[in-house]
Amino acid sequence: MVKLMKIYLDCLPCFLKQTVQAGHLVTDDEGLIRNIVNEVAAMIPYLPENSTPPEIGEKIHRRIREITGMNDPYSSVKQQNIEEALLLYPDMKKLVRESSDPLFTAVKVAIAGNIIDFGTGTEFDITTDIHRITNQEPAINDIGLFKESLEKAESILYLGDNAGESVFDRILIEELKKPVTYIVRGIPVLNDVTYEDAVASGLDDSAFEIISSGTTAPGTVLPLCSANFINLFNKADMVISKGQGNYEGLSDVNRPVFFLLKAKCAVIARDIGVCEGDTVVKGINF
Amino acid sequence: MVKLMKIYLDCLPCFLKQTVQAGHLVTDDEGLIRNIVNEVAAMIPYLPENSTPPEIGEKIHRRIREITGMNDPYSSVKQQNIEEALLLYPDMKKLVRESSDPLFTAVKVAIAGNIIDFGTGTEFDITTDIHRITNQEPAINDIGLFKESLEKAESILYLGDNAGESVFDRILIEELKKPVTYIVRGIPVLNDVTYEDAVASGLDDSAFEIISSGTTAPGTVLPLCSANFINLFNKADMVISKGQGNYEGLSDVNRPVFFLLKAKCAVIARDIGVCEGDTVVKGINF
Repeated sequence: MVKLMKIYLDCLPCFLKQTVQAGHLVTDDEGLIRNIVNEVAAMIPYLPENSTPPEIGEKIHRRIREITGMNDPYSSVKQQNIEEALLLYPDMKKLVRESSDPLFTAVKVAIAGNIIDFGTGTEFDITTDIHRITNQEPAINDIGLFKESLEKAESILYLGDNAGESVFDRILIEELKKPVTYIVRGIPVLNDVTYEDAVASGLDDSAFEIISSGTTAPGTVLPLCSANFINLFNKADMVISKGQGNYEGLSDVNRPVFFLLKAKCAVIARDIGVCEGDTVVKGINF
Repeated sequence: MVKLMKIYLDCLPCFLKQTVQAGHLVTDDEGLIRNIVNEVAAMIPYLPENSTPPEIGEKIHRRIREITGMNDPYSSVKQQNIEEALLLYPDMKKLVRESSDPLFTAVKVAIAGNIIDFGTGTEFDITTDIHRITNQEPAINDIGLFKESLEKAESILYLGDNAGESVFDRILIEELKKPVTYIVRGIPVLNDVTYEDAVASGLDDSAFEIISSGTTAPGTVLPLCSANFINLFNKADMVISKGQGNYEGLSDVNRPVFFLLKAKCAVIARDIGVCEGDTVVKGINF
């Protein structure tokens, strides 16, 4: 029986904030953005309480696409974030190579990439934030367990989160030294990583395979995923899940999963039991 | 012709955030809070674009009072903030007294009190934040102009903002050494200072008079104020306006006003031309 993390009251204003942000990316016409906000505000009373945030995000971003006729409002910022992250790639590789614990450093680099996020409305500066976070010790640190699982694993499923962050995922994937299947969203939603973004991030060289979870939600909500993905998810020796959206969908799932993320909002921080801004390497069901 | 600061798209999610917060203060019943949020979300499409944030706040908080039947959801947090501020009063007086520029230090203390705010959703810790802000130089600093105006003024109108902050206002008022009329809101709205809060803050000793602006909005929106207040406002030799809510209502008013505030959100910071978190001593129409 899968009990998923539900939306909280605090998520509702945040959905509206995401809407204003997506609106600004789609158009300079304040009147049109106001219309989009109005439409999403009108949805709020009807959002079911037993949904997870990515399920709601799926509905909202679908509505934004319908109203604006734009399939991928975040297209240009995603491209820009990937390009900026690729410029940091050599430095990050060097940091990992010269580290006394390259795998743990690569995990921290991958988590640092998780600052690239438009879903939570926090501002970020990739270059400065990345360096700060790689120096930050995770508030929950199951790296020992992570290493043990990795040693035994023959197949790894790696659930991607945002475009740009995907370049930092690549650094960890290259350090895992096992066959890794990198999972992307089925269609563009928010700034989440799609197949094309994964390829632009160089993951077609690093990962064994890039496969879509089949979902149109900004997170891994199993009932919204393809049968093929669910099968992979159930069979994989090790599952690595990046970011809040995947956590929100999978936090109470009934199999071992490692969550690598930065807690970017009070709701998630409270749910995990850390402070806002903390980073986490958390294994469940071990 | 008075052109007031209008609401921005970014204000809309913030209204919903205020609603969730007010809901939590009124009840522990998540279902009831959800109903309140739903009602306010349903208002969003109908909020007029040429309104100021305090005008919208007035509508929203009136609706919250109607739904919950509670006239003053913030009553206990206001009382708590006043008590906590009163504990800091002796230290703040000492800080001013021992300063090389007591008036400017009192101005900074009054601005520091402006961190006590539930309207903007930012978290605060009175004791630590107060000390940080009194050490912070204002990003816009018209203290010279302020001193000149004060010297010439025979009557001063001081527009209060939040309860608790009112104790810090008292420190500045005591330093002005002129007859000061302290203006409060007409009824409880958000955590804004009312007549009772001003008395509990000791302002009945320090101020010449405490008078209501007659408004039910969380800010000074002249068309919503009493004729008596508008008359006082037009006649006063010097007007000191505290906080964002008063700024939002009066930023484009056609008479000299000093704004003392901390820019607590991106919208206000952008409007004033400072960074979020900056403090401001800003005179207009001089």
